[in-house]
Amino acid sequence: MRVGEFMSMLIYGKNPCKEVLSTEKPIIRAYIEKGMNEEIERLLIQKGIEIKYLSKNEFNGKFSGNHQSVVFEVEDYKMLTLDEVIMKYPQNTQPVFIMLDGITDPHNLGAIIRSAEAGGVQAIIIPKNRSVGVNGTVAKVASGALEHMDIVEVTNLAQTIDKLKKLNFWIVGTDMIADKNYTDIDISTALCIIIGSEGKGISRLLKTTADYLVKIPMVGQVNSLNASVSAGIIIFEILRKKGF
Amino acid sequence: MRVGEFMSMLIYGKNPCKEVLSTEKPIIRAYIEKGMNEEIERLLIQKGIEIKYLSKNEFNGKFSGNHQSVVFEVEDYKMLTLDEVIMKYPQNTQPVFIMLDGITDPHNLGAIIRSAEAGGVQAIIIPKNRSVGVNGTVAKVASGALEHMDIVEVTNLAQTIDKLKKLNFWIVGTDMIADKNYTDIDISTALCIIIGSEGKGISRLLKTTADYLVKIPMVGQVNSLNASVSAGIIIFEILRKKGF
Repeated sequence: MRVGEFMSMLIYGKNPCKEVLSTEKPIIRAYIEKGMNEEIERLLIQKGIEIKYLSKNEFNGKFSGNHQSVVFEVEDYKMLTLDEVIMKYPQNTQPVFIMLDGITDPHNLGAIIRSAEAGGVQAIIIPKNRSVGVNGTVAKVASGALEHMDIVEVTNLAQTIDKLKKLNFWIVGTDMIADKNYTDIDISTALCIIIGSEGKGISRLLKTTADYLVKIPMVGQVNSLNASVSAGIIIFEILRKKGF
Repeated sequence: MRVGEFMSMLIYGKNPCKEVLSTEKPIIRAYIEKGMNEEIERLLIQKGIEIKYLSKNEFNGKFSGNHQSVVFEVEDYKMLTLDEVIMKYPQNTQPVFIMLDGITDPHNLGAIIRSAEAGGVQAIIIPKNRSVGVNGTVAKVASGALEHMDIVEVTNLAQTIDKLKKLNFWIVGTDMIADKNYTDIDISTALCIIIGSEGKGISRLLKTTADYLVKIPMVGQVNSLNASVSAGIIIFEILRKKGF
């Protein structure tokens, strides 16, 4: 949520809108193309939410992108503070947080939120200024997972790492040339895994601040992975190690 | 490669173009914005390839998308036949093929090609008519991996499976409600892993044709993964099992 912006966002498409309806999230406006999406229409009526019907042309004129004839305007996604998220997890639990350093593509952020939700990650930490914001594209790509994922916006990633270290989190950076493999991550502690952007990886400062670095071993000639694929591989390896 | 289409494609951006230069792939035309991308310019001159210099405005007028001031027109990606790929692998080897059923998003196809290249997959099998083609967007997202990945276009996925079965491939389908986990995949045989689209999964016919189905266990409430993330998790689990 950025100060000065209009504090609402648009949710596009059937599944993301259905997911909003399954929560208590307030819907400011619901747009539906007449005769389409009867299930969503019925759920809106049940909840007493006013529906704004648009013709096909009005829909396409008002909204770009893949709207599937249904768009909700909802309150902007509420970010949590680090303290709010930390409070949820008592000392003897081992939450897994994902910290994103320099992820600027909303498709990547959306896919990471989706993998994190499905893979048992407790929170995603993003930097306030240098990251992509949580916008409608992110919500669409996250396919409803955004509603179930705690996202923490912080002003300084390095300071956040110091704070997490004091709370006994182990900080794991990712780097193409690390000594350890991602399969070596010790899951017996609280974890914060740092994922970097595809071109640049994680920043030098965060690399030196991490307790240790891991790589995903590769055997090809180009050997690069999409950031959301890297995050997914690590998230599901941790889940596998936890016995799922 | 579709009959009747112009048989070339455009490669956008620095890294994909550099990757093309590292191969023997013929470059039909190379467009560069004057004064930008001197390294690529030098390599083109070394190779004796004619450069078409454009101004910034000409560039933006001619090409949409993130071109980074360099675009190559190259011969269209050459698809292989199943027989051509099979011939590369003697009977006692255990290649891993990925078959894509209904992947229509070029970003997903590009990211899967990238993961497959980095993760030691030998070929990707796509259906001729119902899939996204290998276009410039796919090449861009694949970040150069396309040049190093064998892609097989087939007219019928089920018949291809029958053929692979006769060649002692084990066919592994993916399904949300399979009994086995992706970590149970037996890597001692040649494998063909079928990845479905995000909404629909793999078709019922292919599910019944597969030797067995595997799922990726999930612990969230929405529990859906981007198709390229699912593929990446399975590819790297197989690589892990193979000892990398």
